[in-house]
Amino acid sequence: MARSPFEWIDEQARARSKAGLVRTLRPRPADSALLDLAGNDYLGLARHPEVTEGAARAARTWGGGATGSRLVSGSTELHAELEHELAEFCGFESALVFSSGYAANLAAVTALAPHGSLIVSDAGNHASLIDGCRLARGTTQVVAHADPDAVRKALDTRTGPAIVVSDTVFSVDGDAAPLTALAAACRDAGEAGQSGRPGAALVLDDAHGLGVIGDGGRGAAWAAGLAGAPDVVTTVTLSKSLGSQGGAVLGPAHVIEHLVNAARTFIFDTGLAPAAAGAALAALRLLRGEPERAARARAVATALYERLTAEGLEAVRPDAAVVSVRAPSPEQALRWAAECRAAGLAVGCFRPPSVPDGISRLRLTARADLTDGQVDRAVGVIIEARR
Amino acid sequence: MARSPFEWIDEQARARSKAGLVRTLRPRPADSALLDLAGNDYLGLARHPEVTEGAARAARTWGGGATGSRLVSGSTELHAELEHELAEFCGFESALVFSSGYAANLAAVTALAPHGSLIVSDAGNHASLIDGCRLARGTTQVVAHADPDAVRKALDTRTGPAIVVSDTVFSVDGDAAPLTALAAACRDAGEAGQSGRPGAALVLDDAHGLGVIGDGGRGAAWAAGLAGAPDVVTTVTLSKSLGSQGGAVLGPAHVIEHLVNAARTFIFDTGLAPAAAGAALAALRLLRGEPERAARARAVATALYERLTAEGLEAVRPDAAVVSVRAPSPEQALRWAAECRAAGLAVGCFRPPSVPDGISRLRLTARADLTDGQVDRAVGVIIEARR
Ligand SMILES: Cc1ncc(COP(=O)(O)O)c(C=O)c1O
Ligand SMILES: Cc1ncc(COP(=O)(O)O)c(C=O)c1O
Repeated sequence: MARSPFEWIDEQARARSKAGLVRTLRPRPADSALLDLAGNDYLGLARHPEVTEGAARAARTWGGGATGSRLVSGSTELHAELEHELAEFCGFESALVFSSGYAANLAAVTALAPHGSLIVSDAGNHASLIDGCRLARGTTQVVAHADPDAVRKALDTRTGPAIVVSDTVFSVDGDAAPLTALAAACRDAGEAGQSGRPGAALVLDDAHGLGVIGDGGRGAAWAAGLAGAPDVVTTVTLSKSLGSQGGAVLGPAHVIEHLVNAARTFIFDTGLAPAAAGAALAALRLLRGEPERAARARAVATALYERLTAEGLEAVRPDAAVVSVRAPSPEQALRWAAECRAAGLAVGCFRPPSVPDGISRLRLTARADLTDGQVDRAVGVIIEARR
Repeated sequence: MARSPFEWIDEQARARSKAGLVRTLRPRPADSALLDLAGNDYLGLARHPEVTEGAARAARTWGGGATGSRLVSGSTELHAELEHELAEFCGFESALVFSSGYAANLAAVTALAPHGSLIVSDAGNHASLIDGCRLARGTTQVVAHADPDAVRKALDTRTGPAIVVSDTVFSVDGDAAPLTALAAACRDAGEAGQSGRPGAALVLDDAHGLGVIGDGGRGAAWAAGLAGAPDVVTTVTLSKSLGSQGGAVLGPAHVIEHLVNAARTFIFDTGLAPAAAGAALAALRLLRGEPERAARARAVATALYERLTAEGLEAVRPDAAVVSVRAPSPEQALRWAAECRAAGLAVGCFRPPSVPDGISRLRLTARADLTDGQVDRAVGVIIEARR
C-alpha cells in the first residue's frame, strides 16, 4: 500500500492532542435548556418571530438561493432594499451586501489596497481582515494594537494611496479602537488643498459595533461622527446583532461602485440567500423600532463585567457587548467552560491558536434580552465553576 | 478642501467606462417573465416548494442565523444532518459545511497546503481556488489548462507534500477536467511501499458537477471512481444545483477533522444560516428521489449546444450544464445579451476582467426543468438577437 499524502496531517493532529488543543464540533439541538452567553446574537433577535418569519417569507417569495453572482442573476430587489436601509440606518451613502462578513472584509481590503498602496493594520484585527491584507496587492504594515501613534509612523512611510484598517470592537477582548485618533492620523497624513497629497482612508470592521454601539445601535462610525465621511468605509456583518448571515460594506457611492467592479468575493461569489437578506432586514427594522435594545446589550455587558471583577476575576472593561475573562491556561479555560456547561451555562472558550496573544479566555456575550435574573445566574455559575 | 484618498478609484472608473467594461447591478423582481438561462440553478430547485419550505421550516426551528462560529455556538444538529447526507450521497467519508462555496475553497486549499508544500493549480481555476492558492503558505505553480503532463512536470519539482487543485467543470466554458489522468499523475508522483514518498493529493472543486454529473448527480469525483479515495478531497457549493447558499468540503475523516482545527474560514466565520442548510438538505433529498433531474440538465445543455452550433455559432461542447458561446468582442457580447433580454431571455455575459483569457462569451446554463418548447424559444431568441 502506498503512503497517504495526508500523513503530515496526522502528525499535526498528534501534536495538537498532546497540547490539549483539539477542537471538536458539538452540534446543538433546536431547543436547549442552556443559558447562552456564547453566541453573538447581541440583541436576542436570531429567534425573534419577526426575524424568522422574515427569513421564511423571503425564501417563499424569492427562492432558496440567489442562483448566481450578484452581477448575473443573483441581485434581487430584496438585496437592494436591504442595502438601502442598512446604508441609511448607519449613515452612509451606499451599501453592498455580501454572502458573509468574512467575504465583505476580504472585498473591502483587497479592492481598496491596489498595487503600490500601503495597508496599516492593527495587530488585533480579525482573521478576515488579516486574510484581506494577505490577498491585497498593497503592502501591509502591522502596527501595535490600538496605537494611533504607531499608525502615524507607518503612514509616514507610504509612497502611494494608503488605508488604515481596524476592528471597531476587537472580537477577542471586546475593547474598542481609538476611532477619533485613527481618523485624525489618516487625515493628518494628507496635505491641505487641492494640490497636496490626499490623506489615508479609514476602513473599519464594525462586526461587533452594529446594533450595540452608537445611537440605537447605528454603529461605531456613527458614534464617532465618522459615518458618511468621504474617507471612511465600514464593513458590518448580518450574522451577529442582526441574527442572520451575510455582510456588507458601507461607504461613499463611488467606493461601492468600485467594489461592484473590482471585488473578487463580490464578483465570483453567489449572492446572499434571500432568507438571510429577509431575516437581516426584519432585524434591522426591529432595531429601528426598538432602539433601546442597543443600550440594554451594553448595560448587560457592564453588569457582567462589574459583578465578575468584584468577585476577583480578571476581565476587560467592555466597550460593547463582549466580556473577556482571563483564564490561567488553555486546559483550565477548557475545564472552566465545561463546568459552566455542566451547570447549564454556555460560554465561549478562546484558546491558542485562535487568539493572537496566546492568552486563553472565557468569552461571554451580553444579550439585550437577558433578564437581571439570568445575569445573576450566569455570574453565579461562572464563579462557582472556577473553584 | 482636502483631496479624497479615493481619487485613484475615480481614475479606474473612467478607464473602465472608456473600455465599455462598467458593471452595474440590475436587481430583479420576485416574478419575472424572463426565461432564465443565466442562473446556476441547474436542477430548477431554487424555487421548488419543498426547498423553500425547507428554508422556512429551518428558520423557524433554528433561528435566522447560526449565532456564532461552528466551533462556538454555530453548530446545530441540522448542520450535522446535512454533512452526513452530503457525504453519503457523494460517496465520501466526511463532510464539513461552510457559509459559501468560496469559503470552502479557501479552507481546502489553505489548510491542505502548509509551508513547504507545492500547489499545482490549473490556469482555468475559479477565483476562489486562486485566492486559496494566494493565501496558502505553500508555493503555487500554475499549469496549462487541463494538461495532466504539465501537472506531472510540476509535481517533479516538489520537495514536500503536494496537492493538485482543479475545477471539475470549469465555470466559464463548462468543459470538464481530465480527472482520471490527474489522479494518475498525483499517484504516480509517489513511490510504492511504506518507505517510499507519498503521492500528491487531488483537490477538486465540484461546484458545477454536483447534481449534474455522475449517477443521479453524485458529482464528478463519483463519476470518475475517485469518490471516497484516501487521497482525494472535493469541494461543492450548495448555491447552484442545490438552489441554496453555502459550500462543503468532502473527504477522509482525518482531513475534515484537520479543517475543523486549521481552516481560518471555518474557525473565524459564522456558521451557515439554518435556512440555507435546510433548503440545501431539502434539495439533496429531492435529487436523491428524482435522480433523472441530473441527466435532464445534461440533455438540455447538449440540445442547446447542438442547436446553436448547427446555426453556425461557436460554442464549447458541454460536459455538464454550462454552455459557453463565443462573442466577437466585449461590446458585442453586451449588446447580444441585451437583445436577448429585450426578447425575454436572460443569459450570462462574461467579459474581461472576469474571464481569464480575455474572450467574451454568452454563458447559458441548462436547467433540468426547461421544457423542449423553452429550449426552442431560447435558441430562437439567441440566433435572432445576434443579427
Ligand atoms: C470582527 C469580525 N469581523 C468579521 C467577522 C466575520 O463575519 P461573518 O461571521 O459574518 O462572516 C467576525 C466574526 O465572525 C468578526 O468577529
Ligand atoms: C467553480 C466555482 N467554485 C466555487 C464557486 C463559489 O461558490 P459560492 O458561490 O457558493 O460561494 C463558484 C461560483 O460561485 C464556482 O463557479
